[in-house]
Amino acid sequence: MASYYVGVDVGGMTIKLGFFSDTGELLEKWNIPTDVSDDGKHILTDIVDSIEEKRESYPGNIAGIGMGIPGPMTDDGVVLKCANFGWGVFNVKNALAGLTGVGNVKVGNDANVAALGEMWKGGGRGYDSIVMVTLGTGCGGGIIYNGKVLTGSKGAGGEIGHIKVERNETERCGCGNRGCLEQYASAVGIVRMAERDLPESSCLYGGEITAKAVFDGAKAGDAYCVEIVERFGRYLGTALSDVAHVVDPEVFVIGGGVSAAGQIILDVVKKYYDENAMYALKDTKFRLAELGNDAGIYGAVRMVLFK
Amino acid sequence: MASYYVGVDVGGMTIKLGFFSDTGELLEKWNIPTDVSDDGKHILTDIVDSIEEKRESYPGNIAGIGMGIPGPMTDDGVVLKCANFGWGVFNVKNALAGLTGVGNVKVGNDANVAALGEMWKGGGRGYDSIVMVTLGTGCGGGIIYNGKVLTGSKGAGGEIGHIKVERNETERCGCGNRGCLEQYASAVGIVRMAERDLPESSCLYGGEITAKAVFDGAKAGDAYCVEIVERFGRYLGTALSDVAHVVDPEVFVIGGGVSAAGQIILDVVKKYYDENAMYALKDTKFRLAELGNDAGIYGAVRMVLFK
Repeated sequence: MASYYVGVDVGGMTIKLGFFSDTGELLEKWNIPTDVSDDGKHILTDIVDSIEEKRESYPGNIAGIGMGIPGPMTDDGVVLKCANFGWGVFNVKNALAGLTGVGNVKVGNDANVAALGEMWKGGGRGYDSIVMVTLGTGCGGGIIYNGKVLTGSKGAGGEIGHIKVERNETERCGCGNRGCLEQYASAVGIVRMAERDLPESSCLYGGEITAKAVFDGAKAGDAYCVEIVERFGRYLGTALSDVAHVVDPEVFVIGGGVSAAGQIILDVVKKYYDENAMYALKDTKFRLAELGNDAGIYGAVRMVLFK
Repeated sequence: MASYYVGVDVGGMTIKLGFFSDTGELLEKWNIPTDVSDDGKHILTDIVDSIEEKRESYPGNIAGIGMGIPGPMTDDGVVLKCANFGWGVFNVKNALAGLTGVGNVKVGNDANVAALGEMWKGGGRGYDSIVMVTLGTGCGGGIIYNGKVLTGSKGAGGEIGHIKVERNETERCGCGNRGCLEQYASAVGIVRMAERDLPESSCLYGGEITAKAVFDGAKAGDAYCVEIVERFGRYLGTALSDVAHVVDPEVFVIGGGVSAAGQIILDVVKKYYDENAMYALKDTKFRLAELGNDAGIYGAVRMVLFK
């Protein structure tokens, strides 16, 4: 009888699901909406119903289910805070195992799970100690050390978006502090930097300011855009050098919507990383992520497919 | 037949050794000088000779030897750079096993090994994810995650003394960069800060400036000393908040000669840590180290006593 593995990536708006073969091949992926009503109590049952429906096309045994959740988690599968869904503290791993009857269930923080996916089949292929940086609306981090997710004692391992990088910031970060990396190294952060003191001479002036427009402007040689990209690179490159002095990964993998700008990101981040990292850390590699929105379902399955 | 374990902590001037029982009790400790002549080639044989001599008092079997070395190491026991001794790259673990005939040999970086010692029998007792900060001449770091040393892919895990904390520094750190934590959070760093712009009104004026004098002055209410201690605390507390956003330890253990100043260190570091750490990390504990110079031999034995 064939064995299948299911990867689930729970987001604030959409839940991504994928059926994988027992050799780790993605057979089919699909989405369902995230129903956050009633304090998110329908989320798990919606997932289970959707898997049940899909398994009709895949006669056989579901040998494991992995899931990524946005929020801190313990290694035991207890979700500690998932404000987006209104979930309280509970053991989501046991709940999912109970609902499905599948014993091999693992749940992790979504950024860590995406990092595992990129290590397995993406930009971190061939390495087993990676730091993944997700530059989306915010700045997420996931750390894999010797092949295992570094969760941290309070589920806050790899929360690199909240490393303090600017002592003189006046605006507050979403976390309540000031000067967090996320305030500069994220789509929102890049726009925020670009909107301050925008000169009429810049190509950005009068148009819609997006992270993409800033990187496009820099590629075209617009001096103001170059300056913003340099600031972005200085904050992120310096912070990643801090991270390297702690966990010394083999490779940094940079993903998220902002990373679509491509090589310019790696170049400017590596430039400031090299300026700040000690000699022993100079050889650390920098790669772009490769799996896009599928990193989460890949990583989720990776948790349950190999022990 | 009784079994004994030997802990060795190799320093630039002195090698500390200890005989331990198979329940982890320190039975006897002693020192021998570090002979750095001939590119350090006598160091291992001196250690082996000293152990052989001492074992006459302990009839029985040597069941394991652990050793800490100042410099980056791989998990396999390969020393990567040990400039103090003139050692090239070689597998010091295999060499020591070959010279002694003991199979159970482990070698680690001294800061990491000391962290393991403090976790086992010192300020980190009862925890298994700790970051140890050693404030001596320089600023060393050792990270234990889930009971295991976090070595890093190039042996530079926990090198927190070289995290960049000051963008406007003009003097160079020993590592070649500028603005490293070690330039402020160390005995040398505190003296360096205190000597700059020392006012005649300070109690330090005209006397010998030491880290101890600065902390004593601050305790006595000297305004300039308080200012230097605040700067020290801001640099170290902020850097440890960076570290927490990466590995999220249960506890920070602060040791080394400077930590003899006591509670004032914990208070000022925790103050700036709290100002910069995100909500999920606020509960991280801060403790003083307890084993002093013995942390290294304890940690060395801990590596070989329990697997």
